[in-house]
Amino acid sequence: MAARSSHKFQAPKGTRDFYPADMAVRRYIESVWREVSINHGFEEIDGPTFEHLELYTAKSGPGIVSELFSFRREGGDVDYALRPEFTPTLARMYAARAAQLPKPVKWFVIESNFRAERPQRGRLREFFQWNADIIGDDSPKADAEVIAVTIGILDRLGLTPDDVQIKVNDRGAAAAFLLDHGVPETNVIPVLELIDKAARLPLNERRQRQEELGVSDFILGAFGPDIIDISFGRFDEEYARAPKELQAALDASRPFHDPIRMELEAHGIGDWCRYSTSIVRGLAYYTGTVFEVIAEGERAIAGGGRYDNLVELFGGPQTPAVGIAMGDVVLRLMLEDRGLLKPEELMPRPDVFVIDATEGEPARFSKLIAELRRAGLHARHSYRATRNVGKLLGEAGKARARFAVILGRELESGNVVLKDLDAGEQRNVPLDDLVDELLRGRAAHQ
Amino acid sequence: MAARSSHKFQAPKGTRDFYPADMAVRRYIESVWREVSINHGFEEIDGPTFEHLELYTAKSGPGIVSELFSFRREGGDVDYALRPEFTPTLARMYAARAAQLPKPVKWFVIESNFRAERPQRGRLREFFQWNADIIGDDSPKADAEVIAVTIGILDRLGLTPDDVQIKVNDRGAAAAFLLDHGVPETNVIPVLELIDKAARLPLNERRQRQEELGVSDFILGAFGPDIIDISFGRFDEEYARAPKELQAALDASRPFHDPIRMELEAHGIGDWCRYSTSIVRGLAYYTGTVFEVIAEGERAIAGGGRYDNLVELFGGPQTPAVGIAMGDVVLRLMLEDRGLLKPEELMPRPDVFVIDATEGEPARFSKLIAELRRAGLHARHSYRATRNVGKLLGEAGKARARFAVILGRELESGNVVLKDLDAGEQRNVPLDDLVDELLRGRAAHQ
Repeated sequence: MAARSSHKFQAPKGTRDFYPADMAVRRYIESVWREVSINHGFEEIDGPTFEHLELYTAKSGPGIVSELFSFRREGGDVDYALRPEFTPTLARMYAARAAQLPKPVKWFVIESNFRAERPQRGRLREFFQWNADIIGDDSPKADAEVIAVTIGILDRLGLTPDDVQIKVNDRGAAAAFLLDHGVPETNVIPVLELIDKAARLPLNERRQRQEELGVSDFILGAFGPDIIDISFGRFDEEYARAPKELQAALDASRPFHDPIRMELEAHGIGDWCRYSTSIVRGLAYYTGTVFEVIAEGERAIAGGGRYDNLVELFGGPQTPAVGIAMGDVVLRLMLEDRGLLKPEELMPRPDVFVIDATEGEPARFSKLIAELRRAGLHARHSYRATRNVGKLLGEAGKARARFAVILGRELESGNVVLKDLDAGEQRNVPLDDLVDELLRGRAAHQ
Repeated sequence: MAARSSHKFQAPKGTRDFYPADMAVRRYIESVWREVSINHGFEEIDGPTFEHLELYTAKSGPGIVSELFSFRREGGDVDYALRPEFTPTLARMYAARAAQLPKPVKWFVIESNFRAERPQRGRLREFFQWNADIIGDDSPKADAEVIAVTIGILDRLGLTPDDVQIKVNDRGAAAAFLLDHGVPETNVIPVLELIDKAARLPLNERRQRQEELGVSDFILGAFGPDIIDISFGRFDEEYARAPKELQAALDASRPFHDPIRMELEAHGIGDWCRYSTSIVRGLAYYTGTVFEVIAEGERAIAGGGRYDNLVELFGGPQTPAVGIAMGDVVLRLMLEDRGLLKPEELMPRPDVFVIDATEGEPARFSKLIAELRRAGLHARHSYRATRNVGKLLGEAGKARARFAVILGRELESGNVVLKDLDAGEQRNVPLDDLVDELLRGRAAHQ
């Protein structure tokens, strides 16, 4: 069918149709994002799906335009762009109310982002993203809280430190290293961007960028994943076993990793985290701690860091801030690979499936279903013409209903048959008690 | 502050920033939409935020383009548009899998829509919309179920038949009347569109359209709100009191309103509904029943109807379908006007606010908060430097926490102080029992 349709009747390239089973998975991921964020004291916000194009060029320069979907209203003279990330909107919203807002604010958002790049595994043109940010606190406590809420989510999704690691570095330390090794200040950001994507670039392209920026193999090598990559949870142990030069390097960088390590250990999440000089993050606006959630053989699942100058850039006062973003695409691939997503179990389960076995009292049937729904119960029925109770019970089972209610002869004495489809037991129940029985049954199942 | 910022640092005209209190209201409305839809047996879906522009012109003709935000990827040759409504996506998704899908499917979606029109009260350029559709059933039962889920939502939001009415008509009946009164078949749709917006048009514009289409005042008047507008719930009573000509007209239109009235009464929702010839709906694709949710003095809150030819238009088999859409903007204005939205009560309430009154054991404090959150509790703490317990309790109260936990001298004997902030009572609790106590406390509050 799809092959016969013209392209206009298909979802645009790099976007997704969510049929019910897919949607149940998406809602499950979103509910974990939301619930864990709220438990960690973050408050939910959102902004427009599109912004003024200048909001993005102000932050990232005109080079960003080719990565965006931008547009004008017919006859209009204002350029807009679909949001490629949430941080500019966040900084704009904070800047607009900075004077009235408490310090810090802890905000999270679940939103869709758009990138005009070529779709590939783990990268789409429209995807969903969770962001959590703490704005107005410059302490390592805030960095640790942002990492902690991220780990809270991974943990709730069924992942462990064997599946994913949060690699932490400090952008200041990385920049200092580059300056020490002769990289001119104006080149620091472009070199960090090159380091960030070096492993994903074709060799000739990487070589060309190295030449343009005057970056030696030695410098690039110094950010390789095997240089400094040490567990926070087993820091002392791994430090003791390390060669002398590595120990010296770790001693020298203590001001960058000691404070955050202490905080992460206090949160009991040291085992999820590593200090890793390979993480520098490509975005220009990071000013301190940077981190990525990494799974073997996959793109980063999440990434973030400290960005102390961004609110100011959008017209607000100078304000420290730290945040993280996690997309749904790589996360979902990873959860699927590990068998951690069971769409059929994530779809809402009917409390009751109502079966009409009367000699034709459709009004009574409709009335009962309406009453059950009004009481807050998830009630279904068949649309088939059949009155074969066995077949209808089969349909109830296929819908995964907890109970079936059969309207039949028992109505003469004011009763209906209530069948527990999990236990396979059935009994007569007065019609007047049915709602209470079903509400009790649902509570017992939860 | 806003006045000083350049426009690029403001939300685009006609879009909204959702700070936490606004977001809590949005999530509340969405949760009612979702929960009631699920209880009524609808399954959630979603599609891309943008589609091929041709998906919309195929349905509505090239005239639609000026009402859309359309765009191309830089260097690309495919036209896209932000979705102005969900129905074309729905029909496309159904058509693509029509052979495998059960009959009927009951689908709902909560999504954002975009219209490039001038923002005004009740109309924005980006808004949220709930849609519920039953595809594959041509009976009045399906029409009634779509109306019933809508009323379920209005009821759950605290509205009554005194606040809102569902006005029901039949597009076939309206078209038959026009043909009977000399309107040529090719003009039927444009005339229905004119009738739909006649009351909102400036007089001279309305007159001009009337002239172009050759529509007399008599015909337009026949669709006035005072012609036929009769309660389904008190139909017999109001019919008996009606003048003879009205009774004759109602008798003649019985085939159109009797079946749906019977269904609505069986659902126990006749009192919310009226048969009203003034409702014709502007969209070209309606083929049968049409309905609108109307509140005194406001634009329609929701509207929908039967569209039996649309799936076919998008490459699927001929398939009956009926659906409704409700936007968030007018609904929210209406709920606000009636005092039915209390943002502060809709924001998530912390289960516990943890106060550090030790002589400086920050690691123990962080560890406890991490444990509480891991147990699924919403736990907060202060970011202020103060150790004044009175001030911190004030902050806990302001955050609307149910309980405060004070870490202090009692830790020596393994206890903490647990204060019920609603009841104003406090007692010592062993640290080891704290999670269980708080989970019990939360359950008792719900």
